[in-house]
Amino acid sequence: MLFSPLLLLLPFAVSAQRFVRFISDDGKEYTGDAILPDNTIDASMSTQARVVEGDILGDFYVTDKVKIQQLLSPLSPERTRTVRCVGFNYVEHNEGTNTTLPEFPILFFKPFTALSDPGADVPVTPGYQQVGDFLSTMDYEAELVVVIGKKAFNISEAEALDVVAGYSIGNDVSHRGWQVDRGGQPRPQFSMGKGADGWAPWGPALVHPSIIEDPQTLKIWSKVNGELKQNSTTANMIFGVKQIVSFFSMGITLMPGDVIFTGTPAGTQFESDDPIWLTDGDVVEVGLDNVGTITNTYRHVNLM
Amino acid sequence: MLFSPLLLLLPFAVSAQRFVRFISDDGKEYTGDAILPDNTIDASMSTQARVVEGDILGDFYVTDKVKIQQLLSPLSPERTRTVRCVGFNYVEHNEGTNTTLPEFPILFFKPFTALSDPGADVPVTPGYQQVGDFLSTMDYEAELVVVIGKKAFNISEAEALDVVAGYSIGNDVSHRGWQVDRGGQPRPQFSMGKGADGWAPWGPALVHPSIIEDPQTLKIWSKVNGELKQNSTTANMIFGVKQIVSFFSMGITLMPGDVIFTGTPAGTQFESDDPIWLTDGDVVEVGLDNVGTITNTYRHVNLM
Repeated sequence: MLFSPLLLLLPFAVSAQRFVRFISDDGKEYTGDAILPDNTIDASMSTQARVVEGDILGDFYVTDKVKIQQLLSPLSPERTRTVRCVGFNYVEHNEGTNTTLPEFPILFFKPFTALSDPGADVPVTPGYQQVGDFLSTMDYEAELVVVIGKKAFNISEAEALDVVAGYSIGNDVSHRGWQVDRGGQPRPQFSMGKGADGWAPWGPALVHPSIIEDPQTLKIWSKVNGELKQNSTTANMIFGVKQIVSFFSMGITLMPGDVIFTGTPAGTQFESDDPIWLTDGDVVEVGLDNVGTITNTYRHVNLM
Repeated sequence: MLFSPLLLLLPFAVSAQRFVRFISDDGKEYTGDAILPDNTIDASMSTQARVVEGDILGDFYVTDKVKIQQLLSPLSPERTRTVRCVGFNYVEHNEGTNTTLPEFPILFFKPFTALSDPGADVPVTPGYQQVGDFLSTMDYEAELVVVIGKKAFNISEAEALDVVAGYSIGNDVSHRGWQVDRGGQPRPQFSMGKGADGWAPWGPALVHPSIIEDPQTLKIWSKVNGELKQNSTTANMIFGVKQIVSFFSMGITLMPGDVIFTGTPAGTQFESDDPIWLTDGDVVEVGLDNVGTITNTYRHVNLM
């Protein structure tokens, strides 16, 4: 309770609601509580924030307004120890991929180096570009992101939401060829197809549970070059946030700053009979009700 | 080059060869260069080490001898950002599990919370014990562990060993029911079956590449309650250390302190027609030539 005496005194000492990390017009990095413009609940539209001093996963207080110049991911990648992801967690996505409904949440990981900013380019390095007959099968997945706020071990479903610091939207960037065909048949692990640097952009804000009391009632969507591709609701998740957090803590310690990508609804190219894979310059927006949108451009990067 | 002037002067300023982290008889934690007793190359038999000051992945120097009371993992778990593992990487293990030979290394992850000490108990919490017909299918996997010493991105096979800080032995503790049957059919991810706290003990030392110039010539084995179960050589790896390190860096930044479990040879219970799963009190030793052994007891842990 570092700042608790101050909390009673300071005029701006309210709970922050939409945590953002950003560069301001002085070139410095800040954490803040985004001030939403009128008529939007998309934190990516914010041009100002109240500065947060302290630790957004612990004790903090809110001070002056500053300008937002460039949004960063709500937590620095270094703050996140482990990125967990859920596979095949929406009924219609499973139908589209001819996958039977899972009996338990399907867990896989991305390395923390995959985490990136709401407006960052998604680098597609030569190993993920087309080589001979092996296509660059780049795809998108809009996903509700859960941020763990407290250490948790073997936590019950009833207590699971108590350890959640908030919610964001993320893109579980995927290369389907590496994920499945080359992921190690007949037992493909998804790791090479989803784990490259910059393949987990998220943001624009970490939205406090006081704003999102029920994470299973949120519209979620994605657009490619402005065209709607995914359009669903988190009500369609097979395993909800409570179940996922509880299950992933089974004999396992979840750490503050860990993030969970909770699976994607129908509408990816993976499910299409005639997929149009993303290529250099394609722009993907993913969005979530009450959180906002992030917009990332896929870029072919050629190394020396 | 923090200590380079000292390196020219200090009597003990030799390259360390078998890094160990340990508690000494003063109750304090040290990093040291293990002094091997005569007639053994198993660092777990060392009772003394020369203290290492500085960073074993950077600049350091070696000073006085102290007693080793209790060995810890060569790096603290916090030092490791990402634990990578290779699946099905020995020819005979694949035959035993009726798996076709992989065309590319099969990557999966454990969370860093799985890392533990050379003599630590392996906790088997209620979710991994028998529940009704679902057996506690606990198993062992002796694996050569590679420790990354330098940041690496898109590194070639020719340069891959330059970023390796050294080698250890680890046990990729596995619950086969969660790994495969409940890992998400028909596309099981291995994460729940291999990622519990304490399911990646490793050590006893981080052995410098000057001792192990060729990591593909090492005997590797495991024993359960003293009985030999796995007995192979790293020459049988399908993908060697060079290929694994290069492949895992494809568009991905490997960080200093990252560890890679490189897959296990034949002889696990997974491959047996009549498996004898490990239960409370079973003792597993895994060993590697020129590195030594770690010995861990599987313990059923009952929580509140």
